[in-house]
Amino acid sequence: VSRPRRPVIALTTDFGLHDNYVGVLHGVILAINRAAVVVDLCHAVPPQDVDAGAFLLGAAYRYFPSDTIHLAVVDPGVGSHRPAIALATPGGTFVGPDNGLFSVAIREQSPGLPAQGGAVSAALLGPRLSVVRLTNPAYFLPRVSATFHGRDVFAPVAAHLASGVPIDRLGEPPETVYLLPAARPVRRPDGTLVAHIVHSDQFGNLTTDLSAAQAEQLPQPLVFRLHGRIVRGLNRYYAEGPELMALIGSSDRVEIAVRNGSAALTLGARVGDEIEVLPAQQ
Amino acid sequence: VSRPRRPVIALTTDFGLHDNYVGVLHGVILAINRAAVVVDLCHAVPPQDVDAGAFLLGAAYRYFPSDTIHLAVVDPGVGSHRPAIALATPGGTFVGPDNGLFSVAIREQSPGLPAQGGAVSAALLGPRLSVVRLTNPAYFLPRVSATFHGRDVFAPVAAHLASGVPIDRLGEPPETVYLLPAARPVRRPDGTLVAHIVHSDQFGNLTTDLSAAQAEQLPQPLVFRLHGRIVRGLNRYYAEGPELMALIGSSDRVEIAVRNGSAALTLGARVGDEIEVLPAQQ
Amino acid sequence: VSRPRRPVIALTTDFGLHDNYVGVLHGVILAINRAAVVVDLCHAVPPQDVDAGAFLLGAAYRYFPSDTIHLAVVDPGVGSHRPAIALATPGGTFVGPDNGLFSVAIREQSPGLPAQGGAVSAALLGPRLSVVRLTNPAYFLPRVSATFHGRDVFAPVAAHLASGVPIDRLGEPPETVYLLPAARPVRRPDGTLVAHIVHSDQFGNLTTDLSAAQAEQLPQPLVFRLHGRIVRGLNRYYAEGPELMALIGSSDRVEIAVRNGSAALTLGARVGDEIEVLPAQQ
Repeated sequence: VSRPRRPVIALTTDFGLHDNYVGVLHGVILAINRAAVVVDLCHAVPPQDVDAGAFLLGAAYRYFPSDTIHLAVVDPGVGSHRPAIALATPGGTFVGPDNGLFSVAIREQSPGLPAQGGAVSAALLGPRLSVVRLTNPAYFLPRVSATFHGRDVFAPVAAHLASGVPIDRLGEPPETVYLLPAARPVRRPDGTLVAHIVHSDQFGNLTTDLSAAQAEQLPQPLVFRLHGRIVRGLNRYYAEGPELMALIGSSDRVEIAVRNGSAALTLGARVGDEIEVLPAQQ
Repeated sequence: VSRPRRPVIALTTDFGLHDNYVGVLHGVILAINRAAVVVDLCHAVPPQDVDAGAFLLGAAYRYFPSDTIHLAVVDPGVGSHRPAIALATPGGTFVGPDNGLFSVAIREQSPGLPAQGGAVSAALLGPRLSVVRLTNPAYFLPRVSATFHGRDVFAPVAAHLASGVPIDRLGEPPETVYLLPAARPVRRPDGTLVAHIVHSDQFGNLTTDLSAAQAEQLPQPLVFRLHGRIVRGLNRYYAEGPELMALIGSSDRVEIAVRNGSAALTLGARVGDEIEVLPAQQ
Repeated sequence: VSRPRRPVIALTTDFGLHDNYVGVLHGVILAINRAAVVVDLCHAVPPQDVDAGAFLLGAAYRYFPSDTIHLAVVDPGVGSHRPAIALATPGGTFVGPDNGLFSVAIREQSPGLPAQGGAVSAALLGPRLSVVRLTNPAYFLPRVSATFHGRDVFAPVAAHLASGVPIDRLGEPPETVYLLPAARPVRRPDGTLVAHIVHSDQFGNLTTDLSAAQAEQLPQPLVFRLHGRIVRGLNRYYAEGPELMALIGSSDRVEIAVRNGSAALTLGARVGDEIEVLPAQQ
């Protein structure tokens, strides 16, 4: 059992900061493992929005130390029979509900998984990933409530993992793991490529599911249409562009932005909205 | 003087995160005790709402290591003659204003205190608790402002406690400690039991002052009425229930919730609202 | 190279807590320097408001250990040719864009700088301060995006500084450093002293640019006029005053407050609004 002397546990939840829930996660972890460095990755996942949680965690985890334990809780099914998992990958270890919350990270750590969502055979994850269902109550709090598994199950499991408990002590390997569909642009029957807004950030910048790599391979210059507005791109950075612009954002995806303003408010745009990629000559 | 090498100091305030006030508390503590692990338990106590602060801290502290120092500031009387205290209990040490903010924790650590609020004789706290008034400026910042005792008094005192300064060096034992009334259901002259909403969380779930233990002893099945709506309970978890449901929440109290929604918004309910417990046959 | 075993890195940004950006800064720092204590000083600087960032950081940094590394990002010019700097002072080391964000701290650490803003000769900073432009990519992330220098430049530079990298390895000394104008009251041609609101906090308390020291030297008792209301002061603390009052706030400046309420809402006042200091006899 070799763990760093200051193991990092990063928290991603939809708890917000209105309550004491996040503080309680810190307390539970420190009561089990005083050496842990507990980081608040993000607690502003929209309530019960597993897709948003998967995006926010999936775009961030690779910037953490690769031995970080990512505890994530966006869990509309808490208390029901949805399983809970711990999943070790070369890029991080993930602890939380088996509801797709780790999909973006899993797809990045295990390329080649089927793009459609649903229960996927755990065998497809490949030899670099190991996964167990959290069934061993020896690593939970003594009393497990029906409504707060973040406190009673996930936080103690993460703390014990950080103390060096081997993952296979936490439970049995499952047959399947639940994945969300891969986020990606689709092509309409008429050939038009249609991307989607996958995130709207604090500044109203709109992240799409069109990756920088994919955008590079399209005919240049790129022309986008969303909410009836034409955006000609790409610009290189916010300060350079016209008022409404497209650029490669910090998560290596095409992003729609308004200089010194909010694209979300300017356009009235929301997560899920379509962005058409028009033929370059238009 | 034996302190853990990484003493935990947990912060509960009504400062919000709009300003630099919380950051300054961290800075003051680390400037005195670099080894401290400073945790943000909750900074979203409604401004100057001592009752809410007592609830949020009282429901959370027991999940922290029992040697945690809880610094709490909800302090409408800052600068006036309200005393400040440090209070050591088997479940944690508390530092802040003597205005009732620690009432829930104190009542739990010292069962049998009178239910009514007010200045209670410190002798009633019993031998397991020790309390002092913070009167020794040697453990304050050199200049104490009239408006920010969190920074100038409570944070340095907490940091010095974490460094091993004995509590009796901080000041003298007081004659009394101020307590809020115990939160609990009341019985109307006609026999109806009336509980109250004591907290509305991030999701709009409504925590009541009816404990799980007390609810178990009532005639089953339980029927509640609030805001003209009947709720038949208890359900076991959110995903199981009808749209509007009652269940035992994570703080071991009866909670009113709406599945995938907000009970606070659905009912227009607020802290302090009454919940009638109706005869089971109704 | 002598660094404390637990170097403190404090973060001040306009990122808010709606996204994963703050979490990513923590991750990048810990991936480079596992021993760092990363503190969230404030992430609620209004978007792209460099003046507010300079105030919030400038009023807080001196409460941190003097060897703290302050990473600050309020950066409307990100990706353009605005330079980035690291600046070591006796009161802290500062890393971020060279756009005035460190003005309040720099002016305090180097008294006597010209009050007007703009590009100031670095020679005027004096021998106690050392400053470099961040031009050495060896201390950046391998790929630097055009939109997120906080992650790709400032966080890794701060982490390397915390690991003991000497500041002069990060780049070359610049000719100039950009400063905001000094915030201070002005005197109208008719002799009236006019102060300004420089910050509105979580409680709606209004901080002005009139310092306690300056206020003491004015004819007493002080009488203020703002938004057509007369405020006679000073009071000593919130609990003592009339409903609308002036007092010396926690940052040693005159502050306008409403007892148990919000002066910002009561007056409809905002940052930048004028406060006239009337002749005492009025």
